[in-house]
Amino acid sequence: MPQTIAFTKGHGTGNDFVIVPDPDGTLDLSDDQVAVLCDRRFGIGGDGILRVVRASAIDEGRELLAASTPSSGTVEWFMDYRNADGSKAEMCGNGVRVFVRYLVDVGWADLDGAPLNVGTRAGVKTVTRSDRGYEVDLGPFVVDDSGVLVRTRGGGAPRPGVGIDVGNPHVVVALPDDAELEGLDLAAQPLLQPEPPHGANVEFVVPSDPLVHEGVGSIRMRVFERGVGETLSCGTGVAAAALAVRHWAGPAAPDHWVVEVPGGTLGVRMPEVDGERHVLLSGPATLVYTGEVTLA
Amino acid sequence: MPQTIAFTKGHGTGNDFVIVPDPDGTLDLSDDQVAVLCDRRFGIGGDGILRVVRASAIDEGRELLAASTPSSGTVEWFMDYRNADGSKAEMCGNGVRVFVRYLVDVGWADLDGAPLNVGTRAGVKTVTRSDRGYEVDLGPFVVDDSGVLVRTRGGGAPRPGVGIDVGNPHVVVALPDDAELEGLDLAAQPLLQPEPPHGANVEFVVPSDPLVHEGVGSIRMRVFERGVGETLSCGTGVAAAALAVRHWAGPAAPDHWVVEVPGGTLGVRMPEVDGERHVLLSGPATLVYTGEVTLA
Repeated sequence: MPQTIAFTKGHGTGNDFVIVPDPDGTLDLSDDQVAVLCDRRFGIGGDGILRVVRASAIDEGRELLAASTPSSGTVEWFMDYRNADGSKAEMCGNGVRVFVRYLVDVGWADLDGAPLNVGTRAGVKTVTRSDRGYEVDLGPFVVDDSGVLVRTRGGGAPRPGVGIDVGNPHVVVALPDDAELEGLDLAAQPLLQPEPPHGANVEFVVPSDPLVHEGVGSIRMRVFERGVGETLSCGTGVAAAALAVRHWAGPAAPDHWVVEVPGGTLGVRMPEVDGERHVLLSGPATLVYTGEVTLA
Repeated sequence: MPQTIAFTKGHGTGNDFVIVPDPDGTLDLSDDQVAVLCDRRFGIGGDGILRVVRASAIDEGRELLAASTPSSGTVEWFMDYRNADGSKAEMCGNGVRVFVRYLVDVGWADLDGAPLNVGTRAGVKTVTRSDRGYEVDLGPFVVDDSGVLVRTRGGGAPRPGVGIDVGNPHVVVALPDDAELEGLDLAAQPLLQPEPPHGANVEFVVPSDPLVHEGVGSIRMRVFERGVGETLSCGTGVAAAALAVRHWAGPAAPDHWVVEVPGGTLGVRMPEVDGERHVLLSGPATLVYTGEVTLA
């Protein structure tokens, strides 16, 4: 018998999601069902699906619970993120804010006291309120400046990029000004040399003038997501872009950045957490509408 | 105070619409509100909005009622179609099927007895059930074979097209085979020479082999809609394409066609209605989900 489910549609800086509440983990969406739901004309439309499930009600969540220590705090909710093609994704910097906004709005969690721990396939992520909406700790990162060349369609000579890993791989390229950024042809996948084993998202960034104002660095960027194309926003890509520019700017560079993407504005901080440098992403999360759909 | 409205999302061969019931005509959506609702990432997403309003509750509907005669039958409902940018549109061959499907599903109309008259800015359109779902009489048409040349990006020499007016203007171009159809670059607007005063949608068609099977003609097509770009389906474009191929095929051509577009399959008939040749479009209409959204 066809099953009807409730959902909420939301986005973070234009990165949009179908949020499906399933606290008891009874909903087993096939890849095809996810693909139909995410189709923008034949379904609901979205970059992916965020299934809201109790950590105790999903295998990956129970693994996190088994590995947790008293000091790491409780993990009540797990973000089961699926890409638009149905494949499982580890983390999504914009998605986790939308996920938390949903939990707070429906009253399943609050951020009034302690930060909120969210289970993901990339481990437990901690979310707090921030001036920009919500801030998520993406954890430690790796900068790899061994050199990769990036070529865009019609873009002339290849440009050097820096590799940044924030749980997923990125290559960041600096451009001199907004005109070059706007003139980029990102309808075609940029070519990387050498090509990373699993590919990489590619961010093109332009520093603001001045780069740093009152202790905050500021950049603009566009992003090409591997397997997807150019998008309005990529949360981990925003963090990678800020990390790359901070790397290039040297030891005097600030640990607080503002990044403008086509879909909006995000904040990035790099504080020390438990003696280790982490990268944190902050930005808005918007719930747009609620609906009911019958699964195919 | 923010207003929350109910809506239904639907599509006809991938041409998709936000259906907003407003029987008493109390909802006055600004262009900006329509644009936000139709935004695929920040809103609901759709090619346009179909407001479902009683003909007696909207000026354009009252004009139709004032001009109607007893023999033309009653017109209870008016399809207030808005493009995704908020501008008012006259008619939409795919939209009117979705509109009628909605009326039938919610019980506001039935097609069990007489055909259903729908008020539009292009006059009263009559819809009946058909094997393919619903069939709408688009009315009489005009074929203009005076010659227009169509050039696509990277497409080599310009090709001759025929002008077809089915309430809105089209130019139809024949291609020899599927390889040429699939190879077309429709990311850029095709150039027309001479350029029609209000532009035109451009359809590229390939005849099937054989063209006619058991009295039914068969073609494939792609369409570039003026001001929009390539779309999965254009209802009036499908009618225009069939009319153009019928025109080229000469007096022995059938009056019944099947047209395959990227979003699905549609039927076109050209019967005589009240002593005049009309073009009728038939195809599916799907309601995908229901929702509630708070207007910005």
